[in-house]
Amino acid sequence: MPNQHKIFNDPVHGFISVRFKIIFDIIEHPWFQRLRRIKQLGLTEYVYPGALHTRFHHALGAMHLMQMAIYTLRDKGQVISEEEEVGVLIAILLHDIGHGPYSHTLEHCLIKGVSHEEISRIIISKLNKEFGLQLSLAIQIFENKYHKKFLHQLVSSQLDTDRLDYLTRDSFFTGVSEGVVGYDRILKMMDVVDDELVIEAKGIYSIEKFIIARRLMYWQVYLHKTVLCVEQMMIKAISRARQLIKRGVELPATSDLNYFLKNNISLDSFKTDDEALHHFTMLDDIDVFSALKMWRYADDLILSELCTAIVDRKLFKIEITDTPPSNDRINTLQKAMARKKDISIEDAGYLVFTESTGNHAYNPNAGRIGILNKNGKVVDIAEASDQLNIMVLSKPVIKYYLCYPKNMELPSE
Amino acid sequence: MPNQHKIFNDPVHGFISVRFKIIFDIIEHPWFQRLRRIKQLGLTEYVYPGALHTRFHHALGAMHLMQMAIYTLRDKGQVISEEEEVGVLIAILLHDIGHGPYSHTLEHCLIKGVSHEEISRIIISKLNKEFGLQLSLAIQIFENKYHKKFLHQLVSSQLDTDRLDYLTRDSFFTGVSEGVVGYDRILKMMDVVDDELVIEAKGIYSIEKFIIARRLMYWQVYLHKTVLCVEQMMIKAISRARQLIKRGVELPATSDLNYFLKNNISLDSFKTDDEALHHFTMLDDIDVFSALKMWRYADDLILSELCTAIVDRKLFKIEITDTPPSNDRINTLQKAMARKKDISIEDAGYLVFTESTGNHAYNPNAGRIGILNKNGKVVDIAEASDQLNIMVLSKPVIKYYLCYPKNMELPSE
Amino acid sequence: MPNQHKIFNDPVHGFISVRFKIIFDIIEHPWFQRLRRIKQLGLTEYVYPGALHTRFHHALGAMHLMQMAIYTLRDKGQVISEEEEVGVLIAILLHDIGHGPYSHTLEHCLIKGVSHEEISRIIISKLNKEFGLQLSLAIQIFENKYHKKFLHQLVSSQLDTDRLDYLTRDSFFTGVSEGVVGYDRILKMMDVVDDELVIEAKGIYSIEKFIIARRLMYWQVYLHKTVLCVEQMMIKAISRARQLIKRGVELPATSDLNYFLKNNISLDSFKTDDEALHHFTMLDDIDVFSALKMWRYADDLILSELCTAIVDRKLFKIEITDTPPSNDRINTLQKAMARKKDISIEDAGYLVFTESTGNHAYNPNAGRIGILNKNGKVVDIAEASDQLNIMVLSKPVIKYYLCYPKNMELPSE
Amino acid sequence: MPNQHKIFNDPVHGFISVRFKIIFDIIEHPWFQRLRRIKQLGLTEYVYPGALHTRFHHALGAMHLMQMAIYTLRDKGQVISEEEEVGVLIAILLHDIGHGPYSHTLEHCLIKGVSHEEISRIIISKLNKEFGLQLSLAIQIFENKYHKKFLHQLVSSQLDTDRLDYLTRDSFFTGVSEGVVGYDRILKMMDVVDDELVIEAKGIYSIEKFIIARRLMYWQVYLHKTVLCVEQMMIKAISRARQLIKRGVELPATSDLNYFLKNNISLDSFKTDDEALHHFTMLDDIDVFSALKMWRYADDLILSELCTAIVDRKLFKIEITDTPPSNDRINTLQKAMARKKDISIEDAGYLVFTESTGNHAYNPNAGRIGILNKNGKVVDIAEASDQLNIMVLSKPVIKYYLCYPKNMELPSE
Repeated sequence: MPNQHKIFNDPVHGFISVRFKIIFDIIEHPWFQRLRRIKQLGLTEYVYPGALHTRFHHALGAMHLMQMAIYTLRDKGQVISEEEEVGVLIAILLHDIGHGPYSHTLEHCLIKGVSHEEISRIIISKLNKEFGLQLSLAIQIFENKYHKKFLHQLVSSQLDTDRLDYLTRDSFFTGVSEGVVGYDRILKMMDVVDDELVIEAKGIYSIEKFIIARRLMYWQVYLHKTVLCVEQMMIKAISRARQLIKRGVELPATSDLNYFLKNNISLDSFKTDDEALHHFTMLDDIDVFSALKMWRYADDLILSELCTAIVDRKLFKIEITDTPPSNDRINTLQKAMARKKDISIEDAGYLVFTESTGNHAYNPNAGRIGILNKNGKVVDIAEASDQLNIMVLSKPVIKYYLCYPKNMELPSE
Repeated sequence: MPNQHKIFNDPVHGFISVRFKIIFDIIEHPWFQRLRRIKQLGLTEYVYPGALHTRFHHALGAMHLMQMAIYTLRDKGQVISEEEEVGVLIAILLHDIGHGPYSHTLEHCLIKGVSHEEISRIIISKLNKEFGLQLSLAIQIFENKYHKKFLHQLVSSQLDTDRLDYLTRDSFFTGVSEGVVGYDRILKMMDVVDDELVIEAKGIYSIEKFIIARRLMYWQVYLHKTVLCVEQMMIKAISRARQLIKRGVELPATSDLNYFLKNNISLDSFKTDDEALHHFTMLDDIDVFSALKMWRYADDLILSELCTAIVDRKLFKIEITDTPPSNDRINTLQKAMARKKDISIEDAGYLVFTESTGNHAYNPNAGRIGILNKNGKVVDIAEASDQLNIMVLSKPVIKYYLCYPKNMELPSE
Repeated sequence: MPNQHKIFNDPVHGFISVRFKIIFDIIEHPWFQRLRRIKQLGLTEYVYPGALHTRFHHALGAMHLMQMAIYTLRDKGQVISEEEEVGVLIAILLHDIGHGPYSHTLEHCLIKGVSHEEISRIIISKLNKEFGLQLSLAIQIFENKYHKKFLHQLVSSQLDTDRLDYLTRDSFFTGVSEGVVGYDRILKMMDVVDDELVIEAKGIYSIEKFIIARRLMYWQVYLHKTVLCVEQMMIKAISRARQLIKRGVELPATSDLNYFLKNNISLDSFKTDDEALHHFTMLDDIDVFSALKMWRYADDLILSELCTAIVDRKLFKIEITDTPPSNDRINTLQKAMARKKDISIEDAGYLVFTESTGNHAYNPNAGRIGILNKNGKVVDIAEASDQLNIMVLSKPVIKYYLCYPKNMELPSE
Repeated sequence: MPNQHKIFNDPVHGFISVRFKIIFDIIEHPWFQRLRRIKQLGLTEYVYPGALHTRFHHALGAMHLMQMAIYTLRDKGQVISEEEEVGVLIAILLHDIGHGPYSHTLEHCLIKGVSHEEISRIIISKLNKEFGLQLSLAIQIFENKYHKKFLHQLVSSQLDTDRLDYLTRDSFFTGVSEGVVGYDRILKMMDVVDDELVIEAKGIYSIEKFIIARRLMYWQVYLHKTVLCVEQMMIKAISRARQLIKRGVELPATSDLNYFLKNNISLDSFKTDDEALHHFTMLDDIDVFSALKMWRYADDLILSELCTAIVDRKLFKIEITDTPPSNDRINTLQKAMARKKDISIEDAGYLVFTESTGNHAYNPNAGRIGILNKNGKVVDIAEASDQLNIMVLSKPVIKYYLCYPKNMELPSE
């Protein structure tokens, strides 16, 4: 039975009500509380100082939008039982539970080859046992195994409540007002046709706007060059620490972080032994950043330089290009660095490095956004939009970047 | 000497300060006060009930953004004298002074062949005399005759403070949050290169967003089909009234409106005789709408039906198509109407009618939006934007529509 | 059965859904549409140019808050049937239907001795017949004759959805951000104890804030001295027109306004004869302001001077004091005016006049605001608030003012 | 010379421009960057999950408001030289530089008897040397030794830009919209009379509102009982850790935190030896919270229980009262706890404890808020406000609270 258990203040959506006891209990669980200590946008705060919001707040926000979507769909005559309501609310609430410290930034660095989705699955399954199988329907929806497919689409698709919340929230806390999405209008325009989540035709401009806003947020926020740079610096610092530890160097760190630095944890480790999961559920941004702070005092020059630069925000120079930087240029820079610091070329790679990044504004292969015309037919937004060139937006864009300390005297190209 | 004379509260921009006495005096002038009675968006309130804001408020808002633009440009080292500052502030303040009742809707209906820009020119010129030639520099800027061309561009170009204010303001008062423009960011990114107003490269996403937001506002607000419909109904009512008056029928109306209904006023009338201007400066939305209200009681069935339908908001049906409706269909409908009401086919054209409308999201022929790259070169946004297909957006879109009373039994197509 | 019939865009609350057919039908009725032409704050736009919002929008907004209140109360276990839901929604929707042009300003000027509540009652009763008695429950609630008293309190009490909407809305459109009320928090804190609408104890600061915000809005907006001044000028103009008409002078006006200028309409007129009601339901701000515009050309100097001053916003000087201005001073001023204009002393009273105004921030006699303590007991906010001196706020404040034309040479006091 | 060096995005104020090179250099300094890691509201995020904003962002925001205040005062004819402008901007920017981890919460816990203001002074003085004495005027203003006293009042008084920013910012990030302050209006109403910062009389309602909003923020946010509880729990954990260390127990912690846990640092330590300052400038929220996370594994039951409870957010029960809880009740509870955990009564005091807190909404002894009447005279707001009982608000309110673990079976009172 629905009942108002708790209200959260949210500067983005106003009040967020928790209406079911099981949901309140999940929120109170230490594993969910851990999300309070994982920033939604990792190091983005280095450019946008307001962007300190957490996965905890995002999960609540996405759940709130899910509740609004359910109300709208019911008002339009779609039948959604209370059991399904609770299921889909839990599914969205826990969709990010498997994220580790600094989310995507360290996703394949701390635990190689294990995605956060896989860890989410393991955690949700454990929670299900703990809560007497009350999460079973949520798991079915999350895994897209429930017969009503549109419930999964509300959790995960090109226009899910996850995206609607994070774009709105990230835009709000960064102060990039242009990323604002008309999430309320989009929610009101949602309907279900043949078990597919669709948008009424009169919402088409809102969808175009949503796609453009997402693209803007990518280039202006998520892939901001200064953010890319400091993220790579953190990855290099962690990698260097692992390498030193492998060589037998003792480095201070919390025991939970140490576990992941010292061992090669695989998906199997998570499945077969509770230790990996235990340490993971204790781990958050604070473990990582406190380690960086302590490593400023490390004997290893490379590690201490990287960590000091991150903590004091003396960031490296970053050059962004449409094509990969030439090997020649990288080699020249690394050699110069090796000479300057009296280190090996290989070690110079921790201070002079290159990476690439990219994104789709709209990915037609990841399931379409269906537009419901007045005649009852559903067409892809790419087809329905009379003018915006969705096909062009669908083309992935890749950018390359090269980073190195600002103050070094380097041979210019 | 700048001095704070007056502060206006603006829900959109906060406080708007009037810093120069001459500007305060212009605002106090009855001709400027008249703009309080001309809604910025005419009949759009029929769809968006909050859209009651006026040209008065818009003019103040655009002036406020102009002031911000001046501060930014000066901070970047551009020299703008106080005389030029006052000039460009007055130019934007008065850019819409020549608008008549219901702005664009009745622009070529009440006074045929005379645009609001031409009337603006006449009014500004009169004011200049009244204010002892203190508006001369403003006029030069307005007419693009001043040697610093970028000042004119701030008043009138594809990215002027006029557009920045009206998009923001219209979005605010309609509640269409998706039309929100990052005007503060755009203003901060403004610079001047070779006397051309340009935007720094890092503002490129804001410009893309601005173009998309403008397009969205066009289709979702300015050209909303219900708005188009009621606008045409008003035009038909005015036309019918003029026709009846020509036939000698007496219709109640304020004397100022009567002047324009009874006479064929041309641009020459305005230039040669003060009467036209006098009546024009007394005229506003209230004259027109009070006439519609009175004409509900008119003996002429067509006029009373149109006016009752407008006032009571019993709007006609509107069909929107990408191609013009066939003459056959129009004829059939008009014939049916003529039969039903026992009126001539010609008169039936007041109740069954067709029109077209269109817009460019970005018009490359109307002067480019220049993007200033880091290398100091300026390129067109159409070229600078790596992905958004500006060329597609530049293509004008034309829509056709057909209107007729909802309750009539009509032969279906 | 609830069903989504229509969505209104509201810059204040976002989307407002109309979920019941009968409500949609009422909104479509010409008598309700008339509220589109009655500004919520009358002449306040003379000081706050954004304050053009209408009683139409306010009624929709208050209905929206009522819907939210219902959801909250149901979530807390209060039983509210769908019939009661529709009833209370209609009651709040129509609570202002009896307002005439310029609402409170002309309330006792156009139709002497008849309050807008009485006219509301008559109109709602007529609508009830027209809609096949579907409004009967709404009427019971409106009249506080329904057995569940808290439903009436939601419509009309010291903390009803009417106040929550108008304070929020007026604050929004004037741009006086300090008037912002935490309406969402207050709504969430609502509960019902012994059929009394109460606020949970933890909402006490929001209530204090609500009372202070209301007080601030009174002095800064509703009773702003410039607004008081222009309101009185309008009242004087209408009175003068009535006087002239009584003397046999012909003045232009719409026929609906003329009806009220020429006749002394009483509550009985409304009850016994349909003509009064017919004309009233045709009347709005436009009739009044178009009359003012036409009367600028009147032969009577007093009327034309008043009307020109209003239309051109050349407002009178206003002196505000805590005690009434002395009769001596008033007489001296009126005599000077009579001499200057060569008019009688009595007529001078249209140009030199005095009035008083006042308000309670919190009126303990108008029903308390009950605070629900954790122990389940309900106490008056005046008692529950540990520090804010509600008793002081409850004391009515009266201010006196004296108005006269700015440009006149007057003997100083 | 002013020049635009850098723009920060601020969701609260929009763009914040840094216009002077020296200010940009200070912001870039690691000591200022440290403020990025000190949350403005410490553990308030435990109740308001959005309240993660930092002293870094607040310092920038307060500087921005200072800039606006300067513009306003200059527009009103006050002479403020560029040197003074830079001075007062630096003074406000650095006013909180001496705050340590968790700001006020741990202020007298980590470093006994040393206030953050004293540390601020030491740090600013060091920075002044580092920046070639460019901060000398800022120091004079900060210390209220500069002859223009109003500059100091802008930095620190009952209505300074510090308060204006933090109330607005805290309200924004907590989502407690009722705490919103009309800071823009207050800034516009500022003036200087006889070297005293005053507010024009027409801003009086904004000031009343400001005082009420501050009071609301105190009780609803700053002194929220759950926040008080977790803060005390953190203080008890730190105290326990210090006690254990004194007894020779080894506890993991960053070296910078260890320095303050192991030594009794006094103001003298800061003045005479660089080590204290060095460690202090390396210290932030992360050092403290990572220690709490590590101490969950401590052998000491009291410490591990406190830390686990904090990290997992299993907070203690808190009882708030207007009078101190009786010694009897405290003793009974502590004895029960001692028995339950098999610990000494003294140690039980870490788990069952009592504290008090209080605040003034307006403190007349801390310098008045002067209101400038139209007649040119300045009076205290307490006198100028016709109705709000400032004297009542000035009375400090003290609340007492008692905390103990939720799950313990305790003798009820």
